[in-house]
This record gives sequence, structure tokens and C-alpha cells, in this order.
Amino acid sequence: MPATTPLILVTNDDGAEAKGLKALIEVVRPLGIVYAVVPETSQSGMSHAISVKKPLHVRYRKEVSNDRYHCYTVTGTPVDCVKLALNKLLPRKPDLVVSGINHGSNASVNLLYSGTMGAAIEGAVNRIRSIGLSLLDYDPDADFTAAALISKKLVSQVLANGYHADLCLNVNIPAIDKNEIKGVRVCRQTRGYWVEEFEESVDEQGDRIFMLTGSYTNLEPGRPETDEWALESGYAAVVPVEVDHTRYEDVDKLKDLNFDLNT
Amino acid sequence: MPATTPLILVTNDDGAEAKGLKALIEVVRPLGIVYAVVPETSQSGMSHAISVKKPLHVRYRKEVSNDRYHCYTVTGTPVDCVKLALNKLLPRKPDLVVSGINHGSNASVNLLYSGTMGAAIEGAVNRIRSIGLSLLDYDPDADFTAAALISKKLVSQVLANGYHADLCLNVNIPAIDKNEIKGVRVCRQTRGYWVEEFEESVDEQGDRIFMLTGSYTNLEPGRPETDEWALESGYAAVVPVEVDHTRYEDVDKLKDLNFDLNT
Repeated sequence: MPATTPLILVTNDDGAEAKGLKALIEVVRPLGIVYAVVPETSQSGMSHAISVKKPLHVRYRKEVSNDRYHCYTVTGTPVDCVKLALNKLLPRKPDLVVSGINHGSNASVNLLYSGTMGAAIEGAVNRIRSIGLSLLDYDPDADFTAAALISKKLVSQVLANGYHADLCLNVNIPAIDKNEIKGVRVCRQTRGYWVEEFEESVDEQGDRIFMLTGSYTNLEPGRPETDEWALESGYAAVVPVEVDHTRYEDVDKLKDLNFDLNT
Repeated sequence: MPATTPLILVTNDDGAEAKGLKALIEVVRPLGIVYAVVPETSQSGMSHAISVKKPLHVRYRKEVSNDRYHCYTVTGTPVDCVKLALNKLLPRKPDLVVSGINHGSNASVNLLYSGTMGAAIEGAVNRIRSIGLSLLDYDPDADFTAAALISKKLVSQVLANGYHADLCLNVNIPAIDKNEIKGVRVCRQTRGYWVEEFEESVDEQGDRIFMLTGSYTNLEPGRPETDEWALESGYAAVVPVEVDHTRYEDVDKLKDLNFDLNT
């Protein structure tokens, strides 16, 4: 634990009214001073997006705030919330950023689209330990009992042990009964992608309209070191996330792309 | 070169009317059959965002299209454009995705916020070679002469050599005269972050409004293997990008987070 009372920033991508957010706030409130800085509305699929040349309206929710709990809503993305919190709203750099508990999967390639994880990664970019949490249940009224228990254990462990300053964890929890969850496994991100099956119609101008929908393809089924395997096998999956996206093995391999423009 | 005429998907994040897009289309049109599938409006800072539960309107731009060049605009994000192109609009999987030429930097941590790079990374997720291109000049009327030359050399080399199927390159070009550019360097992503200096005002309800603005902090100045150093030194910077965001060194280090929930 930090010497002073921990300062914890909570955000999410499902908006201020999400059940998963409320579950996470209940988890962290006994552990320190909590600032919830969250999008006013759902920001699902917003990834690491920021609002460029667009004003962000910030409202302090006096009616639910007190000395140990402060709540703000922001008309922006999850990453906007983290940026505003760190630069304008919090009294000091927080000891932890927690994002979630998201409704739905952020495992495998979903990590790239996830607003929940965008916020967590923004924490790590700013060298603050960060945890993104998701329950594999899209139901707005999902049961967060098991997810809250796992979140509490992980948050407490990260606060107690510290690890490095840009630790970032992508935590996914299967939508099964607490007693059926076998445990928590540290994994790597599964390789996979979505095959989109857009629903198609036509608008009043005769232009085509598409709604995104699709099915996930796992390129590495049955690999026990992957997050998808862990989740299918009844474990919560923890993937440590890298903010440096360089593909190092290619830096040397592509040396023939080092060229002189004048030859 | 592929045995058949190359099929090239072009997209961007600055929208259909951007000068950088037009420059890139001129670069690739002599190299194959080109499909431009681009956002209708600016999508700067949209990262890897997708439109969830929001219809995408797609318009075929007959007036500029022909047998070898097809242009579509989409009311969505750069990643939406790639998903629609791959799943609905193109006759087959393309040989290359090119995104840009962006107005502004996608070097260092800007990679994470970039809609241009979101689109390129989505190509790589789908195992298509992808290149994101940016000129470090925000001026809508910027001079793309040098950027077009470098883009042409890189695109031709990737089409000719192939490399691996999920190759993804983040290319940034300094805003200097063609004759001053020293060459092209393969680099790694610089560690850095933005310190935000939001401009603050108050709205009609008395709520605070913030506009994002800030200054970049380079955590690794003077390191010649980084993209920021290359750009400052007059080189175009090429960073190979990884779609797997696992931080592998942490997978072993965090084994104490593997725990049994029942103990």
C-alpha cells in the first residue's frame, strides 16, 4: 500500500449509469479516496479515441459525492475522462486507474476496440498502474458478484505489491457462477479477428446503410497460454498490456526500407 | 508484385476532401486497382474506434469512379471503413491497405490516438499488409511533394517484396523540403506522453467546459533508434507495428496473480 491513503481513479466506457461501474465503485471505495470520472453516455467501441476540437462538458455530481468519493461526468470518451482527471480534476497523480467493469468481452482483438481498455492504457501511458475489467455478459442487469470479488482481489494485490509504474492489466471474467470459476490466470492476448456480417438496408436517398455485426474467429484455439482458452476453461484471464506498439522483430528485418532518397 | 494486378484499399482519417488523401490516391493509382473507402468527415483522434449500434451510410461516388478506381464515403470511423471495405465493398481481399496521408504526427504515443493508424492496424488484424502515412504538417494546404515521393517508394517496395501478411508500418515524414530529407529510417516507437493544458470556460448551465490542447513530452530524447529522433534529424521514420499488445515480460513476472479464488 502507498504510505498515504491510496487515490484511485475510476472510469468506464458504458457510461455513468452502468451496473458494472457501480459494482466497481463499491469494490474500490473501502480501499482509498475515489474519483469517478466517467462518460455521460455509452462509449462502447471507442478504443483510444480523444475529442479533437470538440468541447468537453464536465458536471460534478454533488448529490452522490462526499469527502472520500467524488463523481464527475464528461461528455467525451473514456480517454478524455482520464486526461481530464489527471490534468484538471484530481488533487494529485492517482495510485491506480481502474476502468470498468465493462459489460462484454475485451479479450483477444477486442482489446483494440475497447473504450474500457483505452482508458486503462492511457493510465499506463502516464505511468500510473492501470486495470481494465470486463465481465463476459452484455446484459445491462448482469450479475457482477464474481467479477466484483475478482476485481477486489486484483486491485488489492496491485495496490499492495506495486509492480512497475506503467503496469496495465486487461482482465476478463467469464459469465459463470462464482463457484464455477476455477481461478485467475495470467495469459497472452489470443490472435483472432471478427468476420463482419453487416446488416444491410437502404436509406431515403437510396444510399446503402450497414449495421456492424459479426462473429469472432480464434486463430489459436486450444492454446492454454491464451486469454480465450482461459475464459472458455472457466478462468478469469489477466493479460499484461504493452503501451509500446513497436514490432521489434521487424525493426531489423526491414532494414532494406532504410534508404537514401537521392539514389 | 502479386501475379494479378494489385488490389489496393485506400482510407484515411481526415475525410474525403483532405489534400493528403488526394496525394495518396495519385501515388497508388498507377500501381493497381484502387478502392478508396473513406470517412465522410474528419475522424482525427478516433484511434481504433468502431460504430457500435449506429448505422453507417455508404455512398458510391460514381462521378469520380471508373474501372480502375472506385470511391466510397462512409459516415463512420476509419476502422469502420476498413471493415466495410473488406466485408462488403471490395471484390476480393486487397493486397495492401494504405491509410493517409495524414495531416500531423503519428509518431511516438500519437500512434495510439491516430485514426489513420487505427485503419492500418485493422488491415494487419485481417492479415493484409498495411501502411499508415503522415506528414508532420497540420496545414490543410500542406505541400505533399516529398511525402508522395516517399509513399510511392515504400508502397512499391512492400508490393514487390511482400514481407509477412500482417506487416503494419507507421510512416511519419518531416515537414521539410524534399531535398532536405536525409532518407528513410526504420525505428522503434518513442516513449512519451502529452501534458494536457485544457482551455477552460463555463457553459450556460454553469458546468465547466474544456477543450483539449497540450504539449508533448519525449521520455527518450536523443535516442537515434526512436522515431522522434529520426524526424528531428531530417529522416522519414518507419515504425513496424505489432497487433498483439501483450507485454510478454510481464506474463512470467506476474505469475503471483495466478490464484485460486477458493483459498
